[in-house]
Amino acid sequence: MGRRLVNGVDGGGIAADDRGLHYGDGLFETMAAVGGRVRNFALHMARLTESCRRLRFPPPDIELLETECRHAIGEQSSGVVKLVLTRGPGPRGYRPPAEPSVTRVITASAARPALAAPEALTVRLCDTRLGQNPALAGMKHLYRLEQVMACSEWSDPAVGEGLMLSTDGRLVSGTAANLFVVRDGRLETPVIRDCGVAGVMRQVVLHAAHDLGITSAERDMGLEALTTSTEVFLTNAVAGIRPVRVLVGHGEWPLGPVTLRLIERLAATGEA
Amino acid sequence: MGRRLVNGVDGGGIAADDRGLHYGDGLFETMAAVGGRVRNFALHMARLTESCRRLRFPPPDIELLETECRHAIGEQSSGVVKLVLTRGPGPRGYRPPAEPSVTRVITASAARPALAAPEALTVRLCDTRLGQNPALAGMKHLYRLEQVMACSEWSDPAVGEGLMLSTDGRLVSGTAANLFVVRDGRLETPVIRDCGVAGVMRQVVLHAAHDLGITSAERDMGLEALTTSTEVFLTNAVAGIRPVRVLVGHGEWPLGPVTLRLIERLAATGEA
Repeated sequence: MGRRLVNGVDGGGIAADDRGLHYGDGLFETMAAVGGRVRNFALHMARLTESCRRLRFPPPDIELLETECRHAIGEQSSGVVKLVLTRGPGPRGYRPPAEPSVTRVITASAARPALAAPEALTVRLCDTRLGQNPALAGMKHLYRLEQVMACSEWSDPAVGEGLMLSTDGRLVSGTAANLFVVRDGRLETPVIRDCGVAGVMRQVVLHAAHDLGITSAERDMGLEALTTSTEVFLTNAVAGIRPVRVLVGHGEWPLGPVTLRLIERLAATGEA
Repeated sequence: MGRRLVNGVDGGGIAADDRGLHYGDGLFETMAAVGGRVRNFALHMARLTESCRRLRFPPPDIELLETECRHAIGEQSSGVVKLVLTRGPGPRGYRPPAEPSVTRVITASAARPALAAPEALTVRLCDTRLGQNPALAGMKHLYRLEQVMACSEWSDPAVGEGLMLSTDGRLVSGTAANLFVVRDGRLETPVIRDCGVAGVMRQVVLHAAHDLGITSAERDMGLEALTTSTEVFLTNAVAGIRPVRVLVGHGEWPLGPVTLRLIERLAATGEA
């Protein structure tokens, strides 16, 4: 692990006129690699393909991306693979070139040290909010400045994530994770309508809940939803399900039965 | 003209782990160069410095930037200079490094061919809207995907710009220009509170209006503001003031006396 490929070339750089740099005109996927393969690869590629359609990128060459991901990961290795696709180099001006030459950057790295033990995950509520725009919601585009600002709000290493509200005060997600709560035995997650990312692990969890007969719903929720929740957890493609124990100043939750059933289910299916 | 400097080096590339590429974690300025010098340089640097403060970047080295801009432009040349500052390379993760090594990209290019003659500028209303977030409003950060999407809505070369609304339906700006209207002899421009860029030429025009004794106001305006306007124009640092003749499907305006006075004033002071 630790290899980076730029357009298939080991250790390449990015052209200084790349539209990904100049305009955030691109997408990314952060994926877990297990035993040399990307976990939930088809789901990541489905989201990427749909996002390419929305941004009028050419459809991604999935076979090529799979080959390059495996090459970057290396045989039997595990860790994290990040794929960035941009609309490539171009002249100054927002208008996309008619025939873009897409840039792809694939970076494999060893998994980061494990976060605090699941039962101890402490999160905080961020002041920085997520702007709302239905035209961009759901996609993992390159605009992550809100998340950058949110993450710069705290330095206490005991705080493992930050929760973010939309500008109109709805609870949306962590900075790099989707959010789930359990209320009256029912699994709920914020609807991704005008901000936030439609996470692959979020989708995996919703499917697993269905398979286990756990009722689930995507809905608007405010902070007050947390006060009536009996379980809270975060999800992302790399870390899977992480139970939230404490939201500083707002609440505490035990590791509960619904969360545990989901964790066990995803471990059994190999999806997390 | 036509030179690009990356961290002072002619023709350099960008590291594949640059945070500007990965997170839109950076700022830019697009400036006019006249006779080898950047026009309104101090105003551009004032905005950049204030934006660096808001994003917790180190303050920009203005002397160094001025030297590099002049070097990129070349003696006595005129055209456009684009400066990009990013938080530089870094490991995966949104949290900014404590001691970022800022990347600077300075690109000088010949001025683009003149747009349609001022009296003929035709604009359209874009479907893509601007998401709202007070924490980011006003800055020229690298997230321009909304503008990219807006510009991909039309291909008719007779349409020179697109106007954009905020997601809550207020008239904000062009894709790469601020907007002014004249109503009852008074100059009005949308207030930059939760989206849009606080343009340097917008500021120059507001100052010029004050000097000329033209009353001006920054206010919220909807599309209906246009129907009661007698003059409409767009501004940016490169093109100065461009009168809008037609907003397709919404209205037509003559080149009016307030616009003309402002154009003459900025020509006289050398600010546009």
